[in-house]
Amino acid sequence: MDLGIAGRRAILLASSRGLGRACAESIAREGAHVVLNGRTAADVETAAAEIEAAHGVVTTAVVGDSTTTAVHDALLAACPEPDIVLLNGEGPPPTPFGRIDPDLWHAAIDQQLLGPLTFVQRVLPGMRERRWGRIVAVSSAMVKSPNPLMSLSHGTRLGLAGVLKGLSKEAVAENVTINQLLPERFDTGRQQQMAELVMAVKGITYEEARAEQEASINAGRLGRPEEFGDAFAFLCSAQAGYLSGQSLQLDGGSYEGLF
Amino acid sequence: MDLGIAGRRAILLASSRGLGRACAESIAREGAHVVLNGRTAADVETAAAEIEAAHGVVTTAVVGDSTTTAVHDALLAACPEPDIVLLNGEGPPPTPFGRIDPDLWHAAIDQQLLGPLTFVQRVLPGMRERRWGRIVAVSSAMVKSPNPLMSLSHGTRLGLAGVLKGLSKEAVAENVTINQLLPERFDTGRQQQMAELVMAVKGITYEEARAEQEASINAGRLGRPEEFGDAFAFLCSAQAGYLSGQSLQLDGGSYEGLF
Amino acid sequence: MDLGIAGRRAILLASSRGLGRACAESIAREGAHVVLNGRTAADVETAAAEIEAAHGVVTTAVVGDSTTTAVHDALLAACPEPDIVLLNGEGPPPTPFGRIDPDLWHAAIDQQLLGPLTFVQRVLPGMRERRWGRIVAVSSAMVKSPNPLMSLSHGTRLGLAGVLKGLSKEAVAENVTINQLLPERFDTGRQQQMAELVMAVKGITYEEARAEQEASINAGRLGRPEEFGDAFAFLCSAQAGYLSGQSLQLDGGSYEGLF
Amino acid sequence: MDLGIAGRRAILLASSRGLGRACAESIAREGAHVVLNGRTAADVETAAAEIEAAHGVVTTAVVGDSTTTAVHDALLAACPEPDIVLLNGEGPPPTPFGRIDPDLWHAAIDQQLLGPLTFVQRVLPGMRERRWGRIVAVSSAMVKSPNPLMSLSHGTRLGLAGVLKGLSKEAVAENVTINQLLPERFDTGRQQQMAELVMAVKGITYEEARAEQEASINAGRLGRPEEFGDAFAFLCSAQAGYLSGQSLQLDGGSYEGLF
Repeated sequence: MDLGIAGRRAILLASSRGLGRACAESIAREGAHVVLNGRTAADVETAAAEIEAAHGVVTTAVVGDSTTTAVHDALLAACPEPDIVLLNGEGPPPTPFGRIDPDLWHAAIDQQLLGPLTFVQRVLPGMRERRWGRIVAVSSAMVKSPNPLMSLSHGTRLGLAGVLKGLSKEAVAENVTINQLLPERFDTGRQQQMAELVMAVKGITYEEARAEQEASINAGRLGRPEEFGDAFAFLCSAQAGYLSGQSLQLDGGSYEGLF
Repeated sequence: MDLGIAGRRAILLASSRGLGRACAESIAREGAHVVLNGRTAADVETAAAEIEAAHGVVTTAVVGDSTTTAVHDALLAACPEPDIVLLNGEGPPPTPFGRIDPDLWHAAIDQQLLGPLTFVQRVLPGMRERRWGRIVAVSSAMVKSPNPLMSLSHGTRLGLAGVLKGLSKEAVAENVTINQLLPERFDTGRQQQMAELVMAVKGITYEEARAEQEASINAGRLGRPEEFGDAFAFLCSAQAGYLSGQSLQLDGGSYEGLF
Repeated sequence: MDLGIAGRRAILLASSRGLGRACAESIAREGAHVVLNGRTAADVETAAAEIEAAHGVVTTAVVGDSTTTAVHDALLAACPEPDIVLLNGEGPPPTPFGRIDPDLWHAAIDQQLLGPLTFVQRVLPGMRERRWGRIVAVSSAMVKSPNPLMSLSHGTRLGLAGVLKGLSKEAVAENVTINQLLPERFDTGRQQQMAELVMAVKGITYEEARAEQEASINAGRLGRPEEFGDAFAFLCSAQAGYLSGQSLQLDGGSYEGLF
Repeated sequence: MDLGIAGRRAILLASSRGLGRACAESIAREGAHVVLNGRTAADVETAAAEIEAAHGVVTTAVVGDSTTTAVHDALLAACPEPDIVLLNGEGPPPTPFGRIDPDLWHAAIDQQLLGPLTFVQRVLPGMRERRWGRIVAVSSAMVKSPNPLMSLSHGTRLGLAGVLKGLSKEAVAENVTINQLLPERFDTGRQQQMAELVMAVKGITYEEARAEQEASINAGRLGRPEEFGDAFAFLCSAQAGYLSGQSLQLDGGSYEGLF
């Protein structure tokens, strides 16, 4: 299927590894030029080199924390008129509600809410003027099923979800779509870390910890990052211009609710 | 993007025109063999011939009402082991609640609820045994925003949505996904008929009636059937196996609600 | 709290036992006259006598299946201008999807969808003319979390939910509210039967079967019918006229989803 | 209806006027002792005196901004073991997304998210230990229908909604319920101010501006504060202990969505 994005320019926040990297791969394969970002220079540069070699598109590496103005400046210097933007970032750690202090709140707010939204403020007007844009945020399946240990995550990601939904209602008239992807348990470094944590806490083997993760998903397996990347690519496609304001769950069919 | 469905076999209910036909085109282009269906022989046969000529896949035409056992038999005779099934059918007419009599209810129930579900009963076990399946139902954006004139539509389609969601929780473990597409105002014969109806009722021109339709959508335009078809094709793809139980709105960003 | 319904007249379908009976008690205590209904004459008549003795309101017993025209006629003969209507009825049995045949579907559709809606067709216009009405349907928490064994329940109750929501948008302008209550595991005869079924199937004691039921609810207990009845009474109150189109879950805080 | 809260102790944030004041009235009428709060001393003291005179309960006035630690300290000094807590506060002004700067974000976050949550951190453990608690947050109907002009509101209130929902799943086991009320257009000072704003902007009369407000609500009127207060009182009742994690819309039946 031709996604109609060859030659489009994309900025992908936090895309040197994991789901962000998979998103970059999927659209680069379709011919989009990509600006990659991450906090570890070696990772970002490796990703940029590998993607350029594999897909023949122009890649740019911007090192740094994607929630800062300095990195926003650098990203937009590298690509002043992005057609596609991926909002992504590391999630906060599980924390019992009673132990969350204002510093933890402010860090999570900057990371999951204000960082992405200040970047949207900078790219959305141009997309609307140019009458082509695709903004996709990586959220979490938990925003629809809040878990008491993850207040820092849904307490900030839901705000982002709401603001993006509001903005989507107007932007779609100029062919700028704004959607969210809600992953649950993809086979990335994060799930490997969590399996190692469970090994230590429960005194079980890595294989047992992984089996528990798989059993928690209706599909009986973890998601593959390339499945995530291709869903992102579809949302970025030219033919997805009538699809906006959606929160698409990629959770192995695990969500309990009807809608 | 390679959807990984070349050689897959699909049965598409009510696919000789409009959105169903667009769905058939999109997956045939990706190499899927398609069994087409519709109530008017000339339409189904034309669709089958055109799709075969355009995409070089095997097409079969099954004429008749897709909610009947006889047509279910014929579809499964033509394709005993479908990998992909599209549940589609004509919607009921707008009817004030007070004027709905039992006959109208039963016709709508057969068309939107029992017809599709009896067909699912016949194809789902085999998909689960073969560990590959994609079922997609064409519903309506109105199921999430019930309109008092459309009781016959959401009063039956919501039942279908619920049953399919329940089934999706189990079937995903065998790589069978079940999703819904919720369209609003695509540029098909149905919207043209509705524009003509509005012309007559309001004494306005066709262009004015169309402009009203476009203004009712946040995108400021109607959807294009091929946009719908490609969303269907993505849901049928090999890489969409972790995406199930979803109701994806294709409504030009018009839905008011957050989720 | 004065609910402002002393002297109001109510028809309560399937109200001789369980949740329906509790609803009748709660509004009779507030001074509403109640028409009771059930299929077992002794139960309905006992309920009517007890409620009249306890609360000093006028009670009427109408024996028969609340989904039939004959019973609708009798209910409206007893109370031609109801202010309050409770839509209630027995739920269908758990049934694997593959074993549901058309007869089971039609029985469930008549019971949960067409029965209530034909009664609404008869009472809603009068409520709107008189500019006072409260319609409350007893649905199930499962409509928001479909369970694959309960297709007959959510496959019909969701249709009812949708139609009532659509109607609510217009009727509220005439001070007629339409809401739903979504119970999960109240301590009625139905849960007792289910505990006995589980005893037999699992070879456990009644106390163990009850403990399993309690553990399935976040509150760690079953709901009490009088809690249900008082929520119903609140929705029927004069001061609830601005509250319509809602589906209120009474589930011991068990629903996973945000909204 | 006896709500079973006579003698219970309540802290109501931002309760000297409008909806907060109405909530205080409704539970004081049922015999609860109330700690009132607001930023204007005269308003809080008047409310306290009037409620005490009318209902014979103990009232306490705490003056100050309810999002600050100092005021939290004062509230808990006045009532160390509250049974009931109302989370309320003034909403942010409509602001176009492009004009929201970090200062506006931080003010809204403190007001709608961190202020309430830090207070919940202080009262929730005690409620759970004492096995009786009712926490109700006043949110906004817009959290389910985000409006692009109100990013500061739903961008923060949705975070609160998510955190409270997560917490509700555990707290209900100790008879502590946590719910939200989602108002739209109640006849308080805020709607009067908005009508005056519209008068000025559109050059229309106050009556015309009010008529526009009324026409925007399906009920054709604004809500009355006492209707809001009584819904709050019901959620605080002893018999509402099985009702938790809900977001109840009080919007004159205006929400478009099914759930």
